[in-house]
Amino acid sequence: MTHAIVLVQAERTALADLGGQLAEIPGVAEAYSVTGEWDFAAILRLREQDDLAHVVTERLSRLPGIVKTQTMVAFEVYSRHDLEALFSVGE
Amino acid sequence: MTHAIVLVQAERTALADLGGQLAEIPGVAEAYSVTGEWDFAAILRLREQDDLAHVVTERLSRLPGIVKTQTMVAFEVYSRHDLEALFSVGE
Amino acid sequence: MTHAIVLVQAERTALADLGGQLAEIPGVAEAYSVTGEWDFAAILRLREQDDLAHVVTERLSRLPGIVKTQTMVAFEVYSRHDLEALFSVGE
Amino acid sequence: MTHAIVLVQAERTALADLGGQLAEIPGVAEAYSVTGEWDFAAILRLREQDDLAHVVTERLSRLPGIVKTQTMVAFEVYSRHDLEALFSVGE
Amino acid sequence: MTHAIVLVQAERTALADLGGQLAEIPGVAEAYSVTGEWDFAAILRLREQDDLAHVVTERLSRLPGIVKTQTMVAFEVYSRHDLEALFSVGE
Amino acid sequence: MTHAIVLVQAERTALADLGGQLAEIPGVAEAYSVTGEWDFAAILRLREQDDLAHVVTERLSRLPGIVKTQTMVAFEVYSRHDLEALFSVGE
Amino acid sequence: MTHAIVLVQAERTALADLGGQLAEIPGVAEAYSVTGEWDFAAILRLREQDDLAHVVTERLSRLPGIVKTQTMVAFEVYSRHDLEALFSVGE
Amino acid sequence: MTHAIVLVQAERTALADLGGQLAEIPGVAEAYSVTGEWDFAAILRLREQDDLAHVVTERLSRLPGIVKTQTMVAFEVYSRHDLEALFSVGE
Amino acid sequence: MTHAIVLVQAERTALADLGGQLAEIPGVAEAYSVTGEWDFAAILRLREQDDLAHVVTERLSRLPGIVKTQTMVAFEVYSRHDLEALFSVGE
Amino acid sequence: MTHAIVLVQAERTALADLGGQLAEIPGVAEAYSVTGEWDFAAILRLREQDDLAHVVTERLSRLPGIVKTQTMVAFEVYSRHDLEALFSVGE
Repeated sequence: MTHAIVLVQAERTALADLGGQLAEIPGVAEAYSVTGEWDFAAILRLREQDDLAHVVTERLSRLPGIVKTQTMVAFEVYSRHDLEALFSVGE
Repeated sequence: MTHAIVLVQAERTALADLGGQLAEIPGVAEAYSVTGEWDFAAILRLREQDDLAHVVTERLSRLPGIVKTQTMVAFEVYSRHDLEALFSVGE
Repeated sequence: MTHAIVLVQAERTALADLGGQLAEIPGVAEAYSVTGEWDFAAILRLREQDDLAHVVTERLSRLPGIVKTQTMVAFEVYSRHDLEALFSVGE
Repeated sequence: MTHAIVLVQAERTALADLGGQLAEIPGVAEAYSVTGEWDFAAILRLREQDDLAHVVTERLSRLPGIVKTQTMVAFEVYSRHDLEALFSVGE
Repeated sequence: MTHAIVLVQAERTALADLGGQLAEIPGVAEAYSVTGEWDFAAILRLREQDDLAHVVTERLSRLPGIVKTQTMVAFEVYSRHDLEALFSVGE
Repeated sequence: MTHAIVLVQAERTALADLGGQLAEIPGVAEAYSVTGEWDFAAILRLREQDDLAHVVTERLSRLPGIVKTQTMVAFEVYSRHDLEALFSVGE
Repeated sequence: MTHAIVLVQAERTALADLGGQLAEIPGVAEAYSVTGEWDFAAILRLREQDDLAHVVTERLSRLPGIVKTQTMVAFEVYSRHDLEALFSVGE
Repeated sequence: MTHAIVLVQAERTALADLGGQLAEIPGVAEAYSVTGEWDFAAILRLREQDDLAHVVTERLSRLPGIVKTQTMVAFEVYSRHDLEALFSVGE
Repeated sequence: MTHAIVLVQAERTALADLGGQLAEIPGVAEAYSVTGEWDFAAILRLREQDDLAHVVTERLSRLPGIVKTQTMVAFEVYSRHDLEALFSVGE
Repeated sequence: MTHAIVLVQAERTALADLGGQLAEIPGVAEAYSVTGEWDFAAILRLREQDDLAHVVTERLSRLPGIVKTQTMVAFEVYSRHDLEALFSVGE
């Protein structure tokens, strides 16, 4: 499983709906509206690394109202949870 | 449940062990070593908002080798998963 | 009580009225026009943490003339005053 | 009354005690440990503008463990509360 | 006397006239076009601190062609000159 | 007359004395401790442009406790005051 | 052989096609869509240093949809591969 | 094949040798000393994505003299060359 | 002789012609298109310091296609060449 | 001829001597102490592009007291002067 966090800056007019739209993209496990410099953070969990390009550059970055995105790909994942099991439930 | 993402900049010498140490802190569901300006990202899931102060300022920020942290607290959480159920399994 | 400070950058044309508009939003205890990089700072005091999302993303960020906001949520509050008592007077 | 907000960046080792120390300085009405780039935010309320120099440059900036401060002075204050009355109680 | 320095970033088209317009605002003692990141610096000298808000937010910031301003208020003033005397001559 | 503004960042330990030391340097007409990212601003007024190098690189930048300086030289000066006359009194 | 890396920031609408367009410019050996602050990175390998100006300022920077570019020219190249041989195959 | 570019900031004393040391790390195809804000850029070509974590966090980031690194992982690779063939020659 | 370097950021559409236009301004000895964050660097050599204001604010900054300029004035000039002689040839 | 500008940030203690030391390096035609964020700017004129690596990474960057350098290489040079002739006199 490939994990990544995408930070998103949005136009003021897109703030209300963008969170929901982000979470509907297959591969986006969770999306938060957040405090700080960025407006949203999306947590991606993908079966194949190759899906990352598609989700980020073809789906996520093109949502209307997005001004800027910055993707952080996880080199290594540390967790007491078995994330693969947790997130493949009902995948 | 309160969700937050803490971005961490670390000293070179701390890179090898800090990921595991972050994930061992109660309240840290996952920690990643990541690409980009930051060295690690920790995803926090807390039953009570008041735990946030304790986890960030008293546990996380004081791990040896941490240079700088930046916390993004989730205003709203959007997800097709029932995160509360998923992450209270075996909590 | 949840406390937060929201820093606001505004369009030149909005400078005259934005201070008053910020202070009229329920949950905004005080708003200042300020020196430095930001144009305004709003101090939020909210009974419920969940109100924070509503006040920031649905009310405050959508005021006309706002270019950028940055929210700092208080982990811990230190004060010789009993802020809860002070600010629930006439709430 | 003069109002100001001082943003503070602190050494990791000072995080535990600095909040309380800030709030003990006469003129500091409240201090928060906060999310985001800064570690603390102090809200100053001063009877005389001249006190500002003393509080910031002679008291606050010299607390051990402070790395950097940035002061935002309020040009104008907008509030439904009578802040002067509220904060001179027991001053 | 309250002293302040306001740094100004201007649109290219406003460069020719903005210096003179800044200096004509009561309270602006001097204005310079300057080298470096900013285009102009205005030095304010005001009898009353309360005038600061009016000069900066109601007069100066609204001059056509201004993109961004950053105000630095003087906490303390050090000078071998008696600035009050110098600048109240013919005030 | 050549005019310039030098912005100064100082070590915490130098905050108390640096303002006075700046103002004692011949050519420095005024020095302020200021709000915002910088700690001090010095206003230079020099009879000869060539003095600028000496004042900034040989006198000012070498005061103990200075971390960083940024000099803005005035291209043009706009003022209702006759600054040359004002500042050559008792020079 | 002259080597250089050009970092590219693009408009959202150009993300889909710009990678391919970059790789078609003679002198661009490879182009990646990348994680982080930039959207693309192009690796240039040029027989003559003089070609660099033409490729960057006349071809690359003028592709529609480019917002900003930043070129890093290689002073020295370290590699276990014989890059000249590798990349002149079929040039 | 996974491609990535790692930007490196180095201590002055490490400038002479770091280029060669970077290029000796298995997985680093090329390293350049470069113009601009960064001191070196390393181009990584890895058979398995999982090797990325090892090369960056366990080998590259721990070379003596490295101050800061920033990794850009390639989502998609565009090239007229068959990079896999080129770079697996003699791998 | 007064020396200065003016860094220039330009609109994409102005890249082709701006170099030549910069070099035609009396007082601009040389102009380069450059690698890095800026697009051009102009080297100014002026007989009188007062010419600097005219060249920068009235001629250079108003060339069409210029987005931002940043002027660095030389305090002192160090050179094995007699620059005054070199550059007054045919002035 | 290859032209480049190297911007230099120096330790306070190196300000007095670094200008002269820069100008003594073969290939450095001129060095200025400058206003603004940087302390010095060196203008390089080199017969061979390959000399650039040697001058910047092996000579210039290793002068004691240098904190950071940023090199801007000229893609194209625009000038009414015949710079090659001017600067090869007495080379």
